[in-house]
Parts: sequence; structure tokens; C-alpha cells
Amino acid sequence: MILGIVKGTVVATRKMPELVGYKFLLVEPVFGSKKDTIVAGDNIGAGVGEMVLVTTDETTQHGLDHPSPIDAFIVGIVDNPPTLSK
Amino acid sequence: MILGIVKGTVVATRKMPELVGYKFLLVEPVFGSKKDTIVAGDNIGAGVGEMVLVTTDETTQHGLDHPSPIDAFIVGIVDNPPTLSK
Amino acid sequence: MILGIVKGTVVATRKMPELVGYKFLLVEPVFGSKKDTIVAGDNIGAGVGEMVLVTTDETTQHGLDHPSPIDAFIVGIVDNPPTLSK
Amino acid sequence: MILGIVKGTVVATRKMPELVGYKFLLVEPVFGSKKDTIVAGDNIGAGVGEMVLVTTDETTQHGLDHPSPIDAFIVGIVDNPPTLSK
Amino acid sequence: MILGIVKGTVVATRKMPELVGYKFLLVEPVFGSKKDTIVAGDNIGAGVGEMVLVTTDETTQHGLDHPSPIDAFIVGIVDNPPTLSK
Repeated sequence: MILGIVKGTVVATRKMPELVGYKFLLVEPVFGSKKDTIVAGDNIGAGVGEMVLVTTDETTQHGLDHPSPIDAFIVGIVDNPPTLSK
Repeated sequence: MILGIVKGTVVATRKMPELVGYKFLLVEPVFGSKKDTIVAGDNIGAGVGEMVLVTTDETTQHGLDHPSPIDAFIVGIVDNPPTLSK
Repeated sequence: MILGIVKGTVVATRKMPELVGYKFLLVEPVFGSKKDTIVAGDNIGAGVGEMVLVTTDETTQHGLDHPSPIDAFIVGIVDNPPTLSK
Repeated sequence: MILGIVKGTVVATRKMPELVGYKFLLVEPVFGSKKDTIVAGDNIGAGVGEMVLVTTDETTQHGLDHPSPIDAFIVGIVDNPPTLSK
Repeated sequence: MILGIVKGTVVATRKMPELVGYKFLLVEPVFGSKKDTIVAGDNIGAGVGEMVLVTTDETTQHGLDHPSPIDAFIVGIVDNPPTLSK
């Protein structure tokens, strides 16, 4: 999974019906760069500035209420920035 | 999902029958570079210059009418370019 | 999907039985670099020098006759190199 | 699969119920760079500093007790750092 | 699929039971760099120094005897290094 920081919200009025009901957030990876920023679905209420865990690809479906064309989803909000051992 | 800008259309007369009925668009990621440009299927009518949300891999299937060998699909048209918090 | 140019053929006499019957072609992405060259299965007759559309990962299965461990497959031959809007 | 070194632990109190019961570890790839560090689920007891094998995407599900939105999972702990032939 | 060269063997005594019976090999991509080296399962007897075709993600399952958390698998041994047309 990707460790990332929520950087903003994406609004799409015209979208597939399967996407209705989810919030879409811009997530910038902690490891990696701004260039790797993705859009992830959210239904646990992550806010801008929070550190989150994002799962990708077909595994997103195991956390959704119904099958949906969403390839990145926020599955957790991290308590504290982790420390890396050397 | 990838946030991208529609840059053009791809036409393939010789193609698998499962691809008939979809439009294929070149999408350049907003984050990332021209080198990361992909071809995404579309059936919600995205036009050149519009900012779109693209889902990838097997998750595309959850937005299609029938199973199809398509690994990128436009699932939404973004209202306004999102602002990134610092 | 990836837009690429067919650059050559890969022959593997020793292979899994599920791969028998497909042709395997080297495909260099149009966007990206030679470093991103992949091997894609083909059964629509793409030739060296042609521009093709390649789908990846599990979505390949929706274009195959039987399930097969192939993660890239040519799904279309592009009519003309697309023009990118600015 | 990715060969990596466990670098730390990630704790997320607020998370999807399907993630309860797994430990989440930061894994830095041996080949690649710190920028490619990911978070992988674990239930075989890998510790910080150990070299592990990580599987990704939907294949994680074949090692889990129940379907879960987890796209990286530790499947083995490597005995000795492998030697590369030239 | 990835065209790669087998560079070594990875041994993991502590591993998930679904991985028992497969050999795990380090494979360095021919296109790409050492940084992209992955670990792939093998059951067709590829040896160090041989050029192989590797399939990835969920497509590996179509070549396995039983579902297994393995995201890269050797599906063929290449006869001769392919020549690239210009």
C-alpha cells in the first residue's frame, strides 16, 4: 500500500453512476514525489493534511459496498508518521 | 486513479471485437509527464482539453457493459482543476 | 492502454502450455522510452513497425480464448499516429 | 515479487474493518530506492531489519484468510541475501 | 510480459504454505535496469543466465497448479536474444 498525505479534493459532477457516494481525494505519496500524486476514493472521512494508507488496483473492491471502477482507495488513517530504521 | 488531460483520439480499425463501441483517447497525467501518456476508453463523452479521472487495470471492468480487454477507462470529468494544499 | 511500436518477435520453445498458439512481440511505447519495452501476445496479426494498442494485467484475459498467464496483449492496430493537442 | 527490507511499523487506529488483525510494515526494496518504499501487510512475523518477499496487487488475496483491501503482503522471510551472478 | 535474465536464487525457509514447491529466482529486465530486478516463481526449470519471459500480477494464477500469492512467474525460456528493428 501507499503511505500518502491528503492534499485536496477532486469534484466530478459528470461521472459513472458507480462512483456516486464516494469522496475523491488527491493523495501525494510520502515516499516518492509530487509527480506520483494519485486520486483515491474515501469513505472513512480522511481530511486534508492527514496521513493515509491507500490500496490500489482490484484490491480496492474488497473494501467497497458495491463493485466500482475505482483503482485507489483510502483504507486507513495513520496515527503517527512512522520512523524508519536505518 | 489518474488525473489527466485529454490530448487526442486514437483510431484502430483493426481491433478485437470487444473494443467496438468505445472511443479511445490519449490522456496525459496532470501529475507526471508526457512520457506517462496512456490510452483510455471512454463512453461518457470526454473531449479534448477536458480534465478527467481514469481508473486502471481490472477495475475498468466494473464500469463496462461487457468484459473487455481495456486497462484504462475514463470514469469522470473533473469540474475544476483541484488546488493542492501545501 | 499503451500505445506502442512493434519492434521484433520473441520465440520461446520451452514455455507453459497455455502460451501455445500466440505470437509474442516486443513493443516499445510511443510515450516512454526503450527502457519500457515489453513483450505482448498477439493474435490479430500485428507486424514489425506497426503502431499498436496494448492492454495489460488481468484485463488481457477478456480478449483471450482461454485463461493464460499473459499480462500484455495487443488489442488493436492503430490507423494513423495520433496528433496531440497542446 | 519485491525483495525488501522491513524498515518500520505503521499504525492506523481508524481503518477499514477488513484490515483488523494484520500488522503493517514499511518495506524498502533492495533493488530500487527509498522512494519506492511501500506498506505491506504481515502475518508471518517479519521483524524490522529482516529481508522479505512481498507480493502485490490482487495476488495478495491468495494468502489471506478473508478478502481484504490490501495490495502488498509479506509472503516469505529470506534466509540469506541472494548473490547476483554477472 | 517482462523479458529478463535469471541472476540468482532466493531461498525463504519461513514462507506461506502456498509458496511451497516453487523455486524463486531473481530476474533482471533486459530493458530497464538492475533497479527493476524482481523475484519470480519458476516451475519450468529456468537456470541462472537464461533469458526468460515473466508474467505479472493476477495473470500468474493462470499458470499455477493452485491459487498462490505470487505476482511474477516465469512462463517461457527464450531461444535467442531478440533483435530490435529500428
